[in-house]
Amino acid sequence: MSEVRSRIQELLAPIESEMEAMNKVLQAQLGDDSPAVRDMTSHVGRFSGKQLRAALVLLVADATGRKSSEHVKVAAIVEMIHLATLVHDDVLDGAEVRRRVACVNERWDNQTAILLGDFLYSRAFGLSTTLKSGLTSRLLASTTSRLCAGEIEQSTQRYDFELTQERYEFICAAKTASLYGAACELGARVSEQVNSGSFAAEDELATSMACFGEELGLAFQIIDDCLDLVGDAEIVGKSVGTDVEDGKVTLPVLHVYASASEETRTTIRDIYTKPDFEKRAVRLREAVDLTAGLEYAKARAEALVDRAMTRLDALEESPARQTLKSIGDFVLGRNW
Amino acid sequence: MSEVRSRIQELLAPIESEMEAMNKVLQAQLGDDSPAVRDMTSHVGRFSGKQLRAALVLLVADATGRKSSEHVKVAAIVEMIHLATLVHDDVLDGAEVRRRVACVNERWDNQTAILLGDFLYSRAFGLSTTLKSGLTSRLLASTTSRLCAGEIEQSTQRYDFELTQERYEFICAAKTASLYGAACELGARVSEQVNSGSFAAEDELATSMACFGEELGLAFQIIDDCLDLVGDAEIVGKSVGTDVEDGKVTLPVLHVYASASEETRTTIRDIYTKPDFEKRAVRLREAVDLTAGLEYAKARAEALVDRAMTRLDALEESPARQTLKSIGDFVLGRNW
Repeated sequence: MSEVRSRIQELLAPIESEMEAMNKVLQAQLGDDSPAVRDMTSHVGRFSGKQLRAALVLLVADATGRKSSEHVKVAAIVEMIHLATLVHDDVLDGAEVRRRVACVNERWDNQTAILLGDFLYSRAFGLSTTLKSGLTSRLLASTTSRLCAGEIEQSTQRYDFELTQERYEFICAAKTASLYGAACELGARVSEQVNSGSFAAEDELATSMACFGEELGLAFQIIDDCLDLVGDAEIVGKSVGTDVEDGKVTLPVLHVYASASEETRTTIRDIYTKPDFEKRAVRLREAVDLTAGLEYAKARAEALVDRAMTRLDALEESPARQTLKSIGDFVLGRNW
Repeated sequence: MSEVRSRIQELLAPIESEMEAMNKVLQAQLGDDSPAVRDMTSHVGRFSGKQLRAALVLLVADATGRKSSEHVKVAAIVEMIHLATLVHDDVLDGAEVRRRVACVNERWDNQTAILLGDFLYSRAFGLSTTLKSGLTSRLLASTTSRLCAGEIEQSTQRYDFELTQERYEFICAAKTASLYGAACELGARVSEQVNSGSFAAEDELATSMACFGEELGLAFQIIDDCLDLVGDAEIVGKSVGTDVEDGKVTLPVLHVYASASEETRTTIRDIYTKPDFEKRAVRLREAVDLTAGLEYAKARAEALVDRAMTRLDALEESPARQTLKSIGDFVLGRNW
């Protein structure tokens, strides 16, 4: 984790001061008159992690030449929505450790975690209503709907070992990539003007950036699913093995299952579903050779990042564009 | 319940067609491309209940002469936020029956209920961004923050038998009355114009209506807390006794506790806290005479409704104003 963190810090060094400004906005928004709320939000602030989504807003704004005073706020809003989903995810997954700080639902209880997530969502939307244009409110509200719908779809597809890759990616795109896409689109679209001119060329660029974000986000989720399966909690910095516990059949497993013998298939299903069974992910790794599935998933993530990189061809050469390129490598290169 | 429902239906007859239009907007918003989401939202739509908050938007708009085509949408948004809080409340309370339709978390699971609530919030905010002015988005985002902060405060004050009435009411105002206040304020403030003139007289009227809503909402919550303590689930139409189970010490109990003997205090605390204890509210009613507390709480609710009624003096006589008056009686007269 410390290695990952230092790599990402190095990567984001060129926008360090904007990230600091973003974090100031974030901290101010986490404040409240209620001591109980303050106590909790200050705790949440500490597991803010890589803040990749906020960085994407700022980097795309810079690389597209649209950088404005509003982007810092937009970046904070995107990060707050992400924080809200993390807090609610922790309830969902029953995860115990999030970035090596105890989860909200471990330190307080599920009730509080739900309310805190709701509070973060409402603060994020509230902040978006203070921007000059309604664009951010509109795009992030629809993105959040898509994100929740994706998570709901996912929960209905648990223990489905015949899930197609298309369906798996559709769900990942909705629950994860959508916010990456919105972050990049807002980076390219938000401007100083109340009514920004919507010239065709500008529109095309914003759409390219949205695609860049979606593809990057999808790759991120695929790698995340690989890490959950075989990563080390110490290195990844959050609980791993939760997907198998929760019945989420992710790309590496789907790939292995599709070409496995009936015997292996039974083994996989048993490990996922046997009652009172512990460390399912570890058992799965021991019982089944997942190499081919992991290779396949990684190749798919690489292809997505490659496609994302071609989107950057529309931009003029700049340090920000260079950093966007490096983020692609970073997403692929996370350790496992 | 059927009696309550028919009374409220009779009461809202004058705005029947607007309520129908509101429900059409609501149903359209609950739709989604995802079959899993549609399946759940159609279920949620069925426990929409009295829709008092939506009715308040429409009635205040009418009574203040501000009625516009936007109010139907605003009413639907307020109702969706209320639905979202209900869905999340059900997770919080572990309630099994909500308006005699199984709760989302009984039919599906807690995970899904959290996501569905998030989906409803995001749809509500999304719809608010389609209105001509940003007023609704801004007011409802800040109201939702206050609402969540109130619930968080409440959860930290559980099992506090020395909670002051002031603090109890502060929490009730935040978690319940705030949305009533916002509904009435939006009824009075939203208009056809993009930038409505903010004349002092109009501002004063909108503030009066906000106060009317807050006072009515606070009375509603106090009566609700009485019903939870001594009401019949069949008549109330939702699980009762959940406050005692959850350690929420409400006004009637606080009042009795404050003047009780040390022995009675111990009895009350034991009933709230003893592990593996069932039907705590029933036991409390059997062991302790709650009459004085219930009378006190009801008198407080009556005083609040009286004050709310004086706010209506600012309005010209009209059928809508008459209905607003009747809603005050309705809030007080709910059976227990």
